[in-house]
Amino acid sequence: MPIHDVNVMILDNDGVLRREGKQLPGVVELYAQLEKRGISNVLLSNNSRVTSDGLVRQMKQFGVKDFCKDQAMTSAEAAASWIRHNPSADRLEDMRVFAVGEEGVFRSLQELGIALANDQWDGQQWSGLPTDVVVGFNTKMDYATTMAPAWNAIHRGSRWIHTNGDVSYRNAAGAMLPANGAQLAYLSTTGKEPAAVVGKPNREMAESALRRMNVTQDQARIAVVGDNLTEDMGLADNLRSAGWNAEGWMVLTGVTTAEDCDDPSVDRVFQDIRQITRALLSR
Amino acid sequence: MPIHDVNVMILDNDGVLRREGKQLPGVVELYAQLEKRGISNVLLSNNSRVTSDGLVRQMKQFGVKDFCKDQAMTSAEAAASWIRHNPSADRLEDMRVFAVGEEGVFRSLQELGIALANDQWDGQQWSGLPTDVVVGFNTKMDYATTMAPAWNAIHRGSRWIHTNGDVSYRNAAGAMLPANGAQLAYLSTTGKEPAAVVGKPNREMAESALRRMNVTQDQARIAVVGDNLTEDMGLADNLRSAGWNAEGWMVLTGVTTAEDCDDPSVDRVFQDIRQITRALLSR
Repeated sequence: MPIHDVNVMILDNDGVLRREGKQLPGVVELYAQLEKRGISNVLLSNNSRVTSDGLVRQMKQFGVKDFCKDQAMTSAEAAASWIRHNPSADRLEDMRVFAVGEEGVFRSLQELGIALANDQWDGQQWSGLPTDVVVGFNTKMDYATTMAPAWNAIHRGSRWIHTNGDVSYRNAAGAMLPANGAQLAYLSTTGKEPAAVVGKPNREMAESALRRMNVTQDQARIAVVGDNLTEDMGLADNLRSAGWNAEGWMVLTGVTTAEDCDDPSVDRVFQDIRQITRALLSR
Repeated sequence: MPIHDVNVMILDNDGVLRREGKQLPGVVELYAQLEKRGISNVLLSNNSRVTSDGLVRQMKQFGVKDFCKDQAMTSAEAAASWIRHNPSADRLEDMRVFAVGEEGVFRSLQELGIALANDQWDGQQWSGLPTDVVVGFNTKMDYATTMAPAWNAIHRGSRWIHTNGDVSYRNAAGAMLPANGAQLAYLSTTGKEPAAVVGKPNREMAESALRRMNVTQDQARIAVVGDNLTEDMGLADNLRSAGWNAEGWMVLTGVTTAEDCDDPSVDRVFQDIRQITRALLSR
């Protein structure tokens, strides 16, 4: 579709708006342009460690003053929302979720009134088996208090929801480190599969955001902007398969280089978000 | 082959001689019979947390007074020995091994004079990339000090040796918990494969023990006694494929039940080790 037909933009954060914790150039200008052209937008982050409140704080620091909470969603929030809409017990109050992750996961479950099972592991076994296990990336993960109890619960039949499957990320020192996809591989040795891996490229999180924006399939002309073939361009693919009119727009400020862009899931390639703003401005 | 032709016995520990930390009946009688009949024997444990000294202490506690260190080998010792015989640098003193595991792994490397790289990870990156990463099961594993640096080193090209691939074990409270095979799955998300998974069913450890016993292929008639289809009976299979005359003897005091024994790798099934002693005594 022509660039100027786009009326919904789904944006990634790391590698698009920021890199290694620092703002990339052109964020304020891009959001000003989206506002001016009435392009609905949502910042969809697979990072389950943060919250949408945290993303709002980040965007305000970046200079996007009127960025609001509804313009952001994390895979942890999407996972909590998924559980809320797919309860594993007849009554929500009978559910007990063992949560692995950082602030984003705990906060998201808490905000939807979902009770935790974390105090039911005595270090050796469960006093009461959790109904669900939710796993987000956790840089404080360890054997005794997170991976062993999660593994045991999943092995015994607790439903398992994984926030996202990203295998690795680059830390502030530039080192590649394992992420939530490695925890997924660890827990898959139970022989079980997650009931859902909610983050990108799964379309659950995006469709939940599109519903919140009141965007319907017949009117939506979506650009998925990201730096990652698997998660971001994969999401565009999965939306298309589900009947949405969606394009994958790759920016080269993150993990993917120009050579990797020769992929059928990539519709357009931009050096950075400044080039997207210029494209929207042209004509 | 007839039971009485066996002249080498390879024994497993957990599920055979002990269960959930406690001695199973008939250990003293079995070892007395092996001694009496001149059957060479070795206790081959995939447990990389212990040392052969620890196994000697266990056997003396069990009442097998003259059990000596050469009658036992752990997957951690086999991994250290594998590295010693397959150096990754021209000179042994140039090797720096990042070790993940418990006492068994550290002690085994130390005894063979192999230097550690563990202090070269500053929490963010390697000051000098390790030549090798050795991974044994670690109930104190965590993200910051073990899995993240191991993942990063393997991803960057350090050679990777995994002591064993056992996925799970049952703790003293009877709960199934993840073991070294789960760590293997986690680290496999680097896209790399271990240079060796030294423990059972790999035949490296067994062949190393057989060499130490001065047993050769033309004279050996081996019984591999264990409670596990994959590791123990798998070892018997792998020894056969390599030209050894070996049988798989399953005991039902561990993880495998009678129904699971309908497997071509199982040559004989015994209720417990007492039944093996009786079979050796008969005639």
